[in-house]
Order: sequence, then structure tokens, then C-alpha cells
Amino acid sequence: MDAGFFVPVRIVGGENCVKKGAQHFAPFGRSALIVCGKSAAQNGALADVKSALAANGQSAVVYDAIPQNPTLACVYEGARVARENRVDFVVAIGGGSPMDAAKAIAVLACQDAPEGLFAHAIGNAVLPMIHIPTTAGTGSEVTPYAIITNDEQKTKQSISSPALFPRIAFLDGKYMASLPQEVTVNTALDAVSHAVEGMLSVRAGGMSDLFAKQALSLLLGEYENLLAGSYTPASRQNLLYGATLAGMVIANTGTTPVHGMGYSLTYFHGVPHGRANGLLLPNFLKECERIWPGSTRKVFDALGMDLQTFAQKVKALLGRRKKLPEEELRDFAARAAKNKNVRNCRVPFTEADLYTVLKRSVG
Amino acid sequence: MDAGFFVPVRIVGGENCVKKGAQHFAPFGRSALIVCGKSAAQNGALADVKSALAANGQSAVVYDAIPQNPTLACVYEGARVARENRVDFVVAIGGGSPMDAAKAIAVLACQDAPEGLFAHAIGNAVLPMIHIPTTAGTGSEVTPYAIITNDEQKTKQSISSPALFPRIAFLDGKYMASLPQEVTVNTALDAVSHAVEGMLSVRAGGMSDLFAKQALSLLLGEYENLLAGSYTPASRQNLLYGATLAGMVIANTGTTPVHGMGYSLTYFHGVPHGRANGLLLPNFLKECERIWPGSTRKVFDALGMDLQTFAQKVKALLGRRKKLPEEELRDFAARAAKNKNVRNCRVPFTEADLYTVLKRSVG
Repeated sequence: MDAGFFVPVRIVGGENCVKKGAQHFAPFGRSALIVCGKSAAQNGALADVKSALAANGQSAVVYDAIPQNPTLACVYEGARVARENRVDFVVAIGGGSPMDAAKAIAVLACQDAPEGLFAHAIGNAVLPMIHIPTTAGTGSEVTPYAIITNDEQKTKQSISSPALFPRIAFLDGKYMASLPQEVTVNTALDAVSHAVEGMLSVRAGGMSDLFAKQALSLLLGEYENLLAGSYTPASRQNLLYGATLAGMVIANTGTTPVHGMGYSLTYFHGVPHGRANGLLLPNFLKECERIWPGSTRKVFDALGMDLQTFAQKVKALLGRRKKLPEEELRDFAARAAKNKNVRNCRVPFTEADLYTVLKRSVG
Repeated sequence: MDAGFFVPVRIVGGENCVKKGAQHFAPFGRSALIVCGKSAAQNGALADVKSALAANGQSAVVYDAIPQNPTLACVYEGARVARENRVDFVVAIGGGSPMDAAKAIAVLACQDAPEGLFAHAIGNAVLPMIHIPTTAGTGSEVTPYAIITNDEQKTKQSISSPALFPRIAFLDGKYMASLPQEVTVNTALDAVSHAVEGMLSVRAGGMSDLFAKQALSLLLGEYENLLAGSYTPASRQNLLYGATLAGMVIANTGTTPVHGMGYSLTYFHGVPHGRANGLLLPNFLKECERIWPGSTRKVFDALGMDLQTFAQKVKALLGRRKKLPEEELRDFAARAAKNKNVRNCRVPFTEADLYTVLKRSVG
């Protein structure tokens, strides 16, 4: 059965939507914690948020110490800042790292987690959140997930709760105007992977498949621009809407072994998250089709191309890839086999199947 | 600016989703009021709901006295039944009439409205609602609106509040398996009209346009089946998902003068709601284009055809149309000019413009 489809996030989109939509911040209280990385000051998003809050007479504390792949330390520190300043709500600005960190901070600002964040059963007492993506990939602005680095387990790990859905997502492609080409491509590949993985989830359904198709149509419609590294404001907005729709998909379906394997590439080799998914996705699909012939048909129907064409297109975007030693491939396959994403895939993957994908992709 | 996009309804879809998804009813309390028309017993939906509730040990009272175009009397009576039986939640089964009536009942069961339902400021105390459409058209299962007949004003009138969003919508095309051809066509035209009108709303935005395009693609993909009156289960599900997506559009954009004019055709001549919209839509678009050249371009891009082709296709579905006398056309134009839907349209319509549409469509 369809798992259902539920995204209780208000989308506010379009050029200058943060400043024009200042009234949307008003109901959440007197003072905000703005969670971001250093780039938020450059792309204009931080200034827009400050201006919107000021227009409502709301105060703000900025916590901009979020690194790429946020750590437990940084989210505990953010929660300390939130508590110390008695903020009423959180505004997250950034790519997946600040947006995910903000979710963990919103929890830890209200809830002690003596058993540790990853073991903690997240209650409903969470600071309300407003998310503003400045990359088009993660979809965190519409998901109930946050991915935080777990150094004990040497991987990225997710926390998940309906309480982690942001209240509002502001979608303005202008914040991506000066995003580096590499980041644009990697995040777009992340979004493509979300849509594709969502279609192969055990929780995929008629409604989530519709969103996935629409996401792929928007994202692949920008393929030539991604390849050329040349974007109009409309391109940026298409990529952003595509990424958000793909986020709505995984909010309901979850991800698959592509993410499960990708986490090791990121943790041990610093491969950017979206690039890791892009590296693995074509061979994952090939392996799906070998294990269960016909299982990927709807994916390629939605992509409007066959596996070979898709693999070539992704390859052209990825450029030169690093090769990993045999020993690591085996280790990463073993790690991925333990990830819950594996059981979330319609196609059953064994550790050997995961190894095959890793070997063909980065071996 | 985009008005934003917000649909906080959990969609549960697919064959037998009501029975398979019985657990979704559990959180809402011990006893339900089932609001439906007489057809709910025939199409199997009532039995499925009763079985799902029984599986959870929940009790149910059935209120099946909802006529087509629900009246104030029937919703007040439904609220009396709800109060008398102290129900905890409402389950609506049916087309637009029972689904809309259920919303008014859910309000009046908790709130007195001494100033009258239409003048009442709807508060948040509303019985939680679960909606199960058995036609594919209205989209009420995902909107914050209910359309109730106002005999004093001699029209259909809407009530609107975020509190009117159902909590869950179950989407199973099997309940439409024996739906009469005329009802199937009329409700499909209603859904098409929602998607098109949504694109021309002053509140249309990038996200709502994406949903409108996807809705039109699903609905028009079934055109040949609609014309032939021959449906597979997949056709029924496509029409249903299309109607729900179009409902998500108007949940955010509202409707336009097509609905404003259509209400008179329904109130005074008993023209089914969807048919009324279908009768008016092509000439409405023609008039939009005359008033504001280029205003409908995105609509025809989404439809994938030009006005003439679209008008012919709609005409083929509608069959023979009744002609109304001049005097009535003038009266209906005057009534529509007072409807708030007129101000909700990007293209400014005068009473004379509305008359032109009516004259060409049903004159």
C-alpha cells in the first residue's frame, strides 16, 4: 500500500519572497536564533532575514558556526546559545548542513537528551523552524529528517520525527546566483537521487511517484545548463523547486542504499554528499535491474531515457573520479549493509550487491 | 509574489487504502460521525470505513441525509446528530456535497454560529475530519473550503478557514468503478477547471502552477477514456490523483469567475457543478485572452493545445447544451460580478465581460 503523503510545510516561493513575506515570521515569537554557515552573509539571505525580522520588531541572534557535515558538538553548542538567549524560534539558512543542524538545535533547545541525540525519542516540544535553502539539493526544508555526523559510528546518521518538519520553507533561487558550479552540480545530483530513490522505496506510492516525476522533469530540464555551468534566475528557481519536490518525496519514502553507501564516501573521503550519490546512482540502478528485472522501469520512464544514457549524462557532470582501494570498498559495503536504508528499498540488496555497486562506481 | 503553498493533509492512496490503513483512524477518538450521501452504501466505501473503525474498536453513527448541493438545514441537523452522539471526529464519504457538508458539520458541532454560518468567524475548535472522495473532481479532501447552498442569497457560497483542512484524505479509485459516465465527465471537468483557474488566480505561484500542470497532465491523459466512457482501475486512480492535485491548487489560489458564474447555472437550473464550469471555461479563456493578450499562454502550454482544440474537446464531452434566455444571462452576469472570485482573477473581468462569456457559452 501507499505509505501516504504528508508535508505540513508552508511553501513560500518566488523572487524576494523572504522580504516580501516578512509577515510569515511574525507569529513565531519575539526572538529568533538564525542558524547558518558563513556563506549566508554573502548570498544575501542573512540580510533579508534580518530585515524581515526587524520589520516585525523581532530580534535575532546569529549562530553561524555550522561546518559542512555538522557535528554533535556544533548542534549542542547551538542549543546552548538558543537556551541562553531564550529564543522563541529558529531560522535556518543554508544548504543541508545548516538546515539539518537547525533541526537538531531546535530539539536540543527544548529537550534534554541524556541518552544521546541519536538514541533520543524526539518529543513534540521543538522550537518552530523556518528554513531557507541556499542550495538546491537536500530538500531538508520539507523533510522531517536531520543528518548529523556521528563520529562514534564513523558515519552520518539521521534523526527523524514529524516534529522536525519546518513550519515554513522560503524558496528563492536568487540566493544560489553565485553558488559555485561544483556545488550546484553536486546538490542537483543529490536531488535527482532523492527522486529516483524515492520511486524505489518500499514506501513509494502513487502520490510520491507523481512528485518524483515532476521533480525529475524540472531537474533534468536544466541538464544542459548544469553541464554548461550557466544559469538564468529561472534555471535556479527550477532547480530549487525540483529539489524541494524531491525532498517532499523522501519526506514520505525515505532513501535507499545509495545514501547508505554514500555516507562512507563522505565520512572517510570528504566526497560531497550529492556527488557521492551521483557517483553511485547509475550502478545502483543497474544492480536493481539485475536483482529484480523490471524494478527500475518506472524510473527510466520518468527520466525519459535508458540506463546507458542516464549513466553517460551523470558521468559528464561528475568529471574525474577518484578510485578507492579494494579493502575500503569491502568495508563500505559492510557498513552500508547495516544501514536501515537497505531495508527501505523495494529491491533487496545483499552486502555482495552493495559491493558490486561500489566496485563499479568508485573501484 | 507567490501566495505560498500549504496543504497539511495526509494523503493515503491506493487500492483498498481505507481497510489497509485502518490504523490512521485510531488516533482521533472513540466514536465517529460518518457523513455521506446514499451512494456510499453502494460503492463500498461505507462498508470499508465501518470495517476500519471496527478494527480499531471505534464506534460510528451514520448521517447519510446529504443531498446534492447541501443546504444549511442539512448541516445544522448533522451538527445536532454529532453533538447528541458526542462524536470525536467526522468521516466524510462522497463527492463534493457530503465532503463539504461534513466540514460545516465539524464546525457547527463545536461552535455556535448565532450570526449564521456564512457570517461566522470559524475558530480552531473543529472536529477532526477524514475525507474519502468517491468522485474525482471537487478536491474538497485537500481544501480548506466548503460550499453550501445559501437560499437567502440564491447561490452557493463558500466558507473558508485553515481549520477546515481534513486531517487525512484516502484516495481509492475503486469507489468510482460504477460511477455514472455523466458524473465522471462532469467531475473531471470540475477538476480541469480548478487547475486552469488556479493558474489564472492572483495568488498563483511557481509551486501552485507545478501542481496545476501535473493535474492537467493526469486528467487530460484520460481524455480518450472520458470520451469513450471506458475506465480501467488505473484510469480511475489517475482521474482521482489529478482531481486531488487540482484541489491542492485551489486550496492555495482559490477559484475565478468561472466558478462565480457557474453557481447560478447550478442554483437556478440544476446544472451539475462540474458541467457548469466546463460549459463556461473555454469562453472564459477566450475572454481572458481578449482582455489581456498573453494572459492564458501558460495555461495552453500546460494543456498542450490551443484554445480551439481545447474548446472542441470540452464540447465533445459536454454534449447537447441548454440555451438560457437573455434576461437570465444578464442577471447571472450581475450576480457573478458581485462574487469575490472575480477579484481573485489575474485578468480583470467587468460585468459586461462576464455577460459575454455567459452569452457565448449558454446563450
